[in-house]
Amino acid sequence: MLALSLALCATAAQADEGMWMPSQLPEIARQLRAAGFKGDPADLAELTRAPMNAVVKVGGATGAFVSGEGLVLTNHHVAFGVIQYNSKPERDLIGNGFVAADRAAELPANPDFRVLVTTGFDKVTERILADARGKRGRAYYEAVDAATKAVVAECEREAGYRCSVANMYYGTDFYLIRQLELRDIRLVYAPPDSIGNYGDEVDNFVWPRHSGDFTLLRAYVGKDGKPADYSPDNVPYSPPGHLQIATDPVREGDYAMLAGYPGVTFRHRMAAEFAQQIEWQLPSRVALYGSMIKTVERAAASDAEAKVRYAAQVAGFKNTLKRAQGELDGLRRSDAVRVRRDDEAAMLAWLDKQPDANTIRADIDAAQKVLDAAASTRERDQLLTAIRTQAQLLNAALTLQRLALEHAKPDGERETGYQQRDETLIAGRLKQVQRRYAPEVEKALLLDLLSQYKALPKASRVPEFDRVFAGEDAAGLKRSLDALYAGTRLGDEAVRLQAMTADAKALAASDDSLLRAAATLTPAILALEEQTKSRDGELLRLRPAYMRALIGFRKSQGRAVYPDANSTLRVSYGAVSTMDPRDGVRYRPLTTVQGIVEKHTGVKPFDAPQALRDAIAKGDYGSTIDPELKTQTVDFLTNLDTTGGNSGSPVLDANGRLIGLNFDSNWEAVSASWMFDPRYKRAIHVDMRYMRWLLAKVYPAPHLLGEMRLPAE
Amino acid sequence: MLALSLALCATAAQADEGMWMPSQLPEIARQLRAAGFKGDPADLAELTRAPMNAVVKVGGATGAFVSGEGLVLTNHHVAFGVIQYNSKPERDLIGNGFVAADRAAELPANPDFRVLVTTGFDKVTERILADARGKRGRAYYEAVDAATKAVVAECEREAGYRCSVANMYYGTDFYLIRQLELRDIRLVYAPPDSIGNYGDEVDNFVWPRHSGDFTLLRAYVGKDGKPADYSPDNVPYSPPGHLQIATDPVREGDYAMLAGYPGVTFRHRMAAEFAQQIEWQLPSRVALYGSMIKTVERAAASDAEAKVRYAAQVAGFKNTLKRAQGELDGLRRSDAVRVRRDDEAAMLAWLDKQPDANTIRADIDAAQKVLDAAASTRERDQLLTAIRTQAQLLNAALTLQRLALEHAKPDGERETGYQQRDETLIAGRLKQVQRRYAPEVEKALLLDLLSQYKALPKASRVPEFDRVFAGEDAAGLKRSLDALYAGTRLGDEAVRLQAMTADAKALAASDDSLLRAAATLTPAILALEEQTKSRDGELLRLRPAYMRALIGFRKSQGRAVYPDANSTLRVSYGAVSTMDPRDGVRYRPLTTVQGIVEKHTGVKPFDAPQALRDAIAKGDYGSTIDPELKTQTVDFLTNLDTTGGNSGSPVLDANGRLIGLNFDSNWEAVSASWMFDPRYKRAIHVDMRYMRWLLAKVYPAPHLLGEMRLPAE
Repeated sequence: MLALSLALCATAAQADEGMWMPSQLPEIARQLRAAGFKGDPADLAELTRAPMNAVVKVGGATGAFVSGEGLVLTNHHVAFGVIQYNSKPERDLIGNGFVAADRAAELPANPDFRVLVTTGFDKVTERILADARGKRGRAYYEAVDAATKAVVAECEREAGYRCSVANMYYGTDFYLIRQLELRDIRLVYAPPDSIGNYGDEVDNFVWPRHSGDFTLLRAYVGKDGKPADYSPDNVPYSPPGHLQIATDPVREGDYAMLAGYPGVTFRHRMAAEFAQQIEWQLPSRVALYGSMIKTVERAAASDAEAKVRYAAQVAGFKNTLKRAQGELDGLRRSDAVRVRRDDEAAMLAWLDKQPDANTIRADIDAAQKVLDAAASTRERDQLLTAIRTQAQLLNAALTLQRLALEHAKPDGERETGYQQRDETLIAGRLKQVQRRYAPEVEKALLLDLLSQYKALPKASRVPEFDRVFAGEDAAGLKRSLDALYAGTRLGDEAVRLQAMTADAKALAASDDSLLRAAATLTPAILALEEQTKSRDGELLRLRPAYMRALIGFRKSQGRAVYPDANSTLRVSYGAVSTMDPRDGVRYRPLTTVQGIVEKHTGVKPFDAPQALRDAIAKGDYGSTIDPELKTQTVDFLTNLDTTGGNSGSPVLDANGRLIGLNFDSNWEAVSASWMFDPRYKRAIHVDMRYMRWLLAKVYPAPHLLGEMRLPAE
Repeated sequence: MLALSLALCATAAQADEGMWMPSQLPEIARQLRAAGFKGDPADLAELTRAPMNAVVKVGGATGAFVSGEGLVLTNHHVAFGVIQYNSKPERDLIGNGFVAADRAAELPANPDFRVLVTTGFDKVTERILADARGKRGRAYYEAVDAATKAVVAECEREAGYRCSVANMYYGTDFYLIRQLELRDIRLVYAPPDSIGNYGDEVDNFVWPRHSGDFTLLRAYVGKDGKPADYSPDNVPYSPPGHLQIATDPVREGDYAMLAGYPGVTFRHRMAAEFAQQIEWQLPSRVALYGSMIKTVERAAASDAEAKVRYAAQVAGFKNTLKRAQGELDGLRRSDAVRVRRDDEAAMLAWLDKQPDANTIRADIDAAQKVLDAAASTRERDQLLTAIRTQAQLLNAALTLQRLALEHAKPDGERETGYQQRDETLIAGRLKQVQRRYAPEVEKALLLDLLSQYKALPKASRVPEFDRVFAGEDAAGLKRSLDALYAGTRLGDEAVRLQAMTADAKALAASDDSLLRAAATLTPAILALEEQTKSRDGELLRLRPAYMRALIGFRKSQGRAVYPDANSTLRVSYGAVSTMDPRDGVRYRPLTTVQGIVEKHTGVKPFDAPQALRDAIAKGDYGSTIDPELKTQTVDFLTNLDTTGGNSGSPVLDANGRLIGLNFDSNWEAVSASWMFDPRYKRAIHVDMRYMRWLLAKVYPAPHLLGEMRLPAE
């Protein structure tokens, strides 16, 4: 009789929401210690001390120094551009991976690739807000903007540094961030993409996962130790600190913490904004994109070429719809409207008993009014945005008109995106129209969107749009669209590119119907933009009252408040943990190489390389074997708080040693940008033991293991 | 900060393969006790003693008495015919469920529905084999058959009993089974099918599962206590014993055992048969059915009516293909060829050292030769079977010819399926052809199958088939098929039905091309049938040698051998257990009502009734709440050994109390009919606490809870 012994004993794990500024960690020292952290939380607060001084920004995401000689660990997908840049038909680094035999063999990254080492993080709230005080709306916004630019310019006077001002707690605090900008970055070690990106889109957002999504780079500097462009004479950068990769196993329930640069969250938005997001924004986005998908697919159904031209746009629509639906499902599952509303009501009740309640409450009420005003035109604004941006040829005409208007200003005063340096990009986009446009499909899409727009109350409509797109019913709109597209030559690439140099008046006087339409529409669009900027300015002025109330309220509950994510360095802590995605199913926190074999089909994205499969069949795992599972682990799951931008974040154990590399989260966590639900929020990491095994046994790089002070086998 | 505490502590569980005859249980008493059984294994051996006397055969599957007044618990899907029989447009028992308010309200089942109570199980090997000894092949088979019929006839002399002879260990032992045949069965309680069959085909073979797949019936007898047809004067049957439903919770790792009537397994087949199944039978079935699907779909592609006519047949092909592929995947995953081959080699090595090795080995070798002979024509036999059975009109012609031949014999001597009592069924099938046939599709299907047949070596071909289906290439075959179908009027229903009364000669002399073809083919088909029966007889004679060797070998290993399943009462034991379906995923052993809500879409098969959803929202679970999960459980998972026929099997705890009702197994276990792999074999049961809750709180039946001596809430 065959017998099987099943045994699992899990320890309790604590999941704590929070993307903390390192400087806040001493404030939550008790919680950190209770969760299992063994170090001194005060050490984590200092960006220039270990381990935080090892955490760097790498190409829009995160990475970490892992040796004293500038070795940087980040995700394969973060370094993908570097790998691609060095791939050639005869040297397929994407498909085959890369191991630099020595320093000389390390390959220079694309010249715009950067590693940023944070060296300063200082509160500059007073300087940023000094001029803004007393101002309102657009003027407030511009005062903050001007002060920010001045502070940044002053900071960047020292060569080799990039500076920025981070807005914390929605305008409450401002911090000047100073980063050393390393410009000579080289590729050291990359697994084949069939390891680094095993599962690709099919496994994206999925657990269980089996990717070896890591790459090793090295930062170089000039002989003077200062940042420099690539030169063969450059030397490896000596970082102020680096992380030591752990050699202990990772187990369910283990303490884990993660440092990185999460992009954006909305957790401290007002209850009304939660309600709008869940009750209007996401459902209406799902409906709008669903309608656009149907319209484009129907219009292109009998035209194979049109189908190809719109394939990318439709794929984009579908992706937007899927994400919106996922976010909506998640927020509903978490009952986010009610939870946030109850919490805000409790906060306001608390506030009413505080001495400065009246002034704070006045600002909160004013912010609420700004939001209400924006909400009153939200259907219209969403439709006008779709009309302006989703119709390729109309968008080209609007771009040309705007470019002509901006051309009339000095380059520095032009709107972002229309400056001298942006013109190549604009020309590229105007050229691309050729491959992404079919007149019948564009007219069908506009007819769909305009029909929805014309169904809105007259009061919310925009006269210029009504004038250009005449007709109140489908037949009338169709006639006006037919006339508009019959009278334009913008479908011709040369005509579009030529118009890039025309001035606004010439375009308005053109005999091209679409260029004339754009000239009519643009002033209305600019007016709407002004309105938005003015509202944004008011919210920048008013939201700090809400945040102060929230911070005070939380303090009364004995809790700290982290600022919403804004691409600055944050730390979250929690544990290696299971997840129950649905009734009767539990995700186990560690995957193993057996899962690679299970998923392997030989066809992308499940085409594990022969060398890997041979090594798994051989089963020689040496020092990286998991003592309980008796095999090689691949990825692991934690309840750490992450969002986009946390790619490449180092995951540390209770002693600050590197156990994992963050690279994804689970689908159920899409809604975490608004609300952290501990039942469903998980983060997915490469187990450093998998990387060590690959370096030891599969695509050997003993010299790198030595450099990182790791066992050779 | 929201906080979540995750804790799971599972105990080790032992999974033991085996569908034991109750009489074997004392033999494995030590294992039963080690697994946690608290009763006396000797008690389980007696079919006329509790608990085995409570286990009954219900409509082809299993059930159990659960009260002293004839209440029978079985699956909703087992009793579905009874529910359907009593449903009317104005009384939709399928959709609404049914609760009999009192005895008078209980509804009589369809008259052919039976509950069988086993009252005797006696070894009759000597009587069955006495005449067969010394015979071979077909004669051996017929001697066994004649002795079986005599024993059964003698046993059935007493009115009210049905008898049968069960062949254990492939002809090694024969048992006479005597069963009381209860004929007045009534419907007492059925949940709506949206509970009883929640998830339907989508969830079939799936875990996690959320079905309340149970129904309560009641057996009635005449006032004299003897089986009787339905009469309002009948009284509830007093069973010799009944099971007590448990009130204790079910927990992971708990001991569990199950009694029921598993249909058929092949676990003790010879290693060569395992190899043939995995290396030829399943892959060639997948290929053959894949080819037929493609051919029929292509031939019917441009003909909407033909598509409809072949929809059911194609669905059947797809189902066959899916199961074959599932079985193949499972057997490969379990490395079944190697495992069985190694085991057999060890057995033969052991055998060679035994005193009677030579005679036993001679029989085993002879059995191997019979298998080899059958294998030499397996491609041909599989194709000829498909040709005879899958082409609707050709099959009708062959049926008519065979019926005419059998008509010439006395009814008692006719082949099973062609007796007087079968003629209504045959007429029904002949009528159905009308709705399932299109000449172009049938010709395409035959062309596909015949092309494969003609590609076989000439030696293995059958002259009659070659004559009827002339032509060696596709063009030739097409011509002969066109002629065959142009010259038949069997497409006309009246012609088919009329031919049912014709004699064989008349059919052979008919001017209908297909009837003449059938007359040519039938003698060849009969000859092949004779060959098969002769081989079956030889295997019946020879397999006992193999089984005796296996039993002896296992004994030398300290292990007992259960006979392969053959629809007789068997017991399996094991535990409530998790399963790891793939790397990183663990199935939890208990599902809860929250899963019903998660799956609910409002659309069949996930349309949980309002009353159920209201009760879940209310959360009043009374005495049936799970003390750990703090909610109502629905189904649970064990590692018990089951196969088709185990539907409705009672699942008992360590004290013999009823904790669950078996109703399905998992997809990964399809291959368990050949090999039990403890990693993947699981059985799925309704938690009796879910049934109790439904009876207590959702569709109340307090009188039934009282009758079963269960708490009212």
